[in-house]
Amino acid sequence: MDYEHYFAKRIADLKSEGRYRVFADLERQCGRFPVALNHRDDGIHEVVVWCSNDYLGMGQHPEVLAAAKEAVDRCGAGAGGTRNISGTNHYHVLLEQEIADWNAKESALLFTSGYVANQTTLSTLGATIPGCVIFSDELNHNSMIEGIRHSRAAKHVFRHNDPESLAEALSAYPKETPKLVAFESVYSMDGDIAPIKEMCDVAEAHNAMTFIDEVHAAGMYGAEGSGVAERDGQRDRLTIIQATLAKAIGVVGGYIAGSKSMVDYVRSFGPGFIFSSSLPPMVAAAARASIQVLRRTPEIRTRHQERAATCKARLKAQGIPVMDSVSHIVPVMVGNAALCKQASDLLLKKHHIYVQPINYPTVPVGTERLRITPTPLHTDEMMDHLVKSVVAVWDELDLHKVHVKAAE
Amino acid sequence: MDYEHYFAKRIADLKSEGRYRVFADLERQCGRFPVALNHRDDGIHEVVVWCSNDYLGMGQHPEVLAAAKEAVDRCGAGAGGTRNISGTNHYHVLLEQEIADWNAKESALLFTSGYVANQTTLSTLGATIPGCVIFSDELNHNSMIEGIRHSRAAKHVFRHNDPESLAEALSAYPKETPKLVAFESVYSMDGDIAPIKEMCDVAEAHNAMTFIDEVHAAGMYGAEGSGVAERDGQRDRLTIIQATLAKAIGVVGGYIAGSKSMVDYVRSFGPGFIFSSSLPPMVAAAARASIQVLRRTPEIRTRHQERAATCKARLKAQGIPVMDSVSHIVPVMVGNAALCKQASDLLLKKHHIYVQPINYPTVPVGTERLRITPTPLHTDEMMDHLVKSVVAVWDELDLHKVHVKAAE
Ligand SMILES: Cc1ncc(COP(=O)(O)O)c(C=O)c1O
Ligand SMILES: Cc1ncc(COP(=O)(O)O)c(C=O)c1O
Repeated sequence: MDYEHYFAKRIADLKSEGRYRVFADLERQCGRFPVALNHRDDGIHEVVVWCSNDYLGMGQHPEVLAAAKEAVDRCGAGAGGTRNISGTNHYHVLLEQEIADWNAKESALLFTSGYVANQTTLSTLGATIPGCVIFSDELNHNSMIEGIRHSRAAKHVFRHNDPESLAEALSAYPKETPKLVAFESVYSMDGDIAPIKEMCDVAEAHNAMTFIDEVHAAGMYGAEGSGVAERDGQRDRLTIIQATLAKAIGVVGGYIAGSKSMVDYVRSFGPGFIFSSSLPPMVAAAARASIQVLRRTPEIRTRHQERAATCKARLKAQGIPVMDSVSHIVPVMVGNAALCKQASDLLLKKHHIYVQPINYPTVPVGTERLRITPTPLHTDEMMDHLVKSVVAVWDELDLHKVHVKAAE
Repeated sequence: MDYEHYFAKRIADLKSEGRYRVFADLERQCGRFPVALNHRDDGIHEVVVWCSNDYLGMGQHPEVLAAAKEAVDRCGAGAGGTRNISGTNHYHVLLEQEIADWNAKESALLFTSGYVANQTTLSTLGATIPGCVIFSDELNHNSMIEGIRHSRAAKHVFRHNDPESLAEALSAYPKETPKLVAFESVYSMDGDIAPIKEMCDVAEAHNAMTFIDEVHAAGMYGAEGSGVAERDGQRDRLTIIQATLAKAIGVVGGYIAGSKSMVDYVRSFGPGFIFSSSLPPMVAAAARASIQVLRRTPEIRTRHQERAATCKARLKAQGIPVMDSVSHIVPVMVGNAALCKQASDLLLKKHHIYVQPINYPTVPVGTERLRITPTPLHTDEMMDHLVKSVVAVWDELDLHKVHVKAAE
């Protein structure tokens, strides 16, 4: 076999299918978010980022930056080991306490990413609880799917956000069979939200554990911002709450929160936790400062929701096909990989707006979209410019509109 | 099933087997490495860390810290997205170029950790190259094993560091079968080093790709420090060079380096790369500064090897059973989990020396050990104190000695 030829061929195939990904080379501008510099072949261009997952701009919050730099001055750049072998820093301990408290759980555990948190927790539980069966929402994130698959536990996929479908799958098993139901709160590509209470009702009736991924909700929902489970008053019913420190919290890393025994179990048996160097003190310190700010600042969440609602309404008023999102995410359907890329390119090059095209494997083929994420820091002027530019691009490419009103 | 009871029971079992892990809560002291503060129930104690994987103390190098803080000031705390969706920062681009150049390869790719680099690369190659067979050293790290297992490719385990055993396994397959040989350079628990040239000879004869994990070598071996493959003049023969940014480089993250097509392939198809938020700019900037320092500072490697050799010789002279390590790692055999923990506890509490006991699953049961990692920043005085303290603990616990000379 000619390996080089094989790799090159598969890359050429991606290109011919219009699925080859070119990453936008950005230089974030601290203090000017959502403005960034975009390094391109023809030079450096200023753009407004409309697709960041730093949903609240916490990545540039002064308290977060001060905490990061203070930790650098105190403890240096890295943790120096795995958690067990010299790599537990006092900042990890403090952050785990903060996360547990924030989620109203006994205990919490840090991972290097939300991906690893999902992958490790699900694969460890599925593989080590004898006879465990996992029930997974059909739209679950890749990190959950890979974790479940890696566990080699029996798995059932239920219909998206459908407690009845879940109930049907669960009732095939006797009460004593160990069961784990895995789902997300906010689904990030469509912006819909799980019926957490109903899912917990069904899971409880069948004595199943529940695992919720709040990656796109932590920081943004609930009085103190820990997620949709908090908003809906369901936190005590969830066995495991998982999320990331890389999106609304603005840094990097992941976590789970739950009972002392469950967390200690994953800590003791999870390979992706045990065998990997821990997060730098500067990361843990910054994330903790961010969570502390978010807990005491509900206004940032109010403003965030207002910006998203306004953006949706204004785009819809122009006939732009905004999908039915009930969250802060504003997905705009294009439905074709090549056109989606063209729309994104035009926005970037003609209008200095950066919205990455979302294509397969992140969303199914034929549902390619622009995914807009307004933040509290997007101004009215920026939104005027966005709406005008999207409409101009839609006209230029003759893309599908839903209906056109006379005025915005 | 009573889940809480199950978790609690398994934890209780670990405790009764002496395998329950208690993490030392450390506060690294920037500018005073290897000194750290150890937070314990009875207060905060100053200790000398002798088991850090910040092997060269780069985690506190002034240029590294300055780079981290400069990136915080310029770009903020986080990257804001996955690499594809707004999360490619200019610092990532620069760091990938630096790593490729450092390893004399065309291209490089960043991951959130060395664990994810191994897991994702091996599982992606094994799963997506039709008919691929993977050949794995029997002592490979958990992250490689999990990646290979997850790929579901056919797998053969060959005897540790044994090219003949590898040749035997490879010769069961025709030349046209796609094959991948995975091994490490420095094995971190025994401190032995792979015969890279011989492994490559065998792999080439059978037209197999080669994957080397230089996690415990990057920064420390070769003229510019990229690893043992550089030292041995074998880099161009290795298909994939993998390592971490969390050990000798002193920060966090992982990478692979190789041909443009191979790297682009993993970038395009690797789920653990695609679906996870990227490293913060401050991490990428710090890691790049560290690599730049390491490339131009061979003296740090000379001093490192001298410290390790001196430490081994001095402990051996006292009859302490230092294992046959040819690297910078100084493993001292105890062979019993409970005694190993006692030795570590005594060193910590009586002698203010922190050396974590290494037990199962990190090493096989019955080979529990203390793993000492001298760095260029451990002084003669610190080493005097270490040797005296280890001898005192050996005497106090009546542990096995190899032979005793009259004087050190
Ligand atoms: C639903 C969901 N879960 C988990 C992750 C992974 O989290 P992280 O980016 O921290 O690796 C992501 C995406 O990044 C996600 O969208
Ligand atoms: C041989 C080896 N490979 C990979 C890893 C994982 O690298 P990282 O700590 O960056 O996740 C480790 C340990 O941490 C290791 O010892």
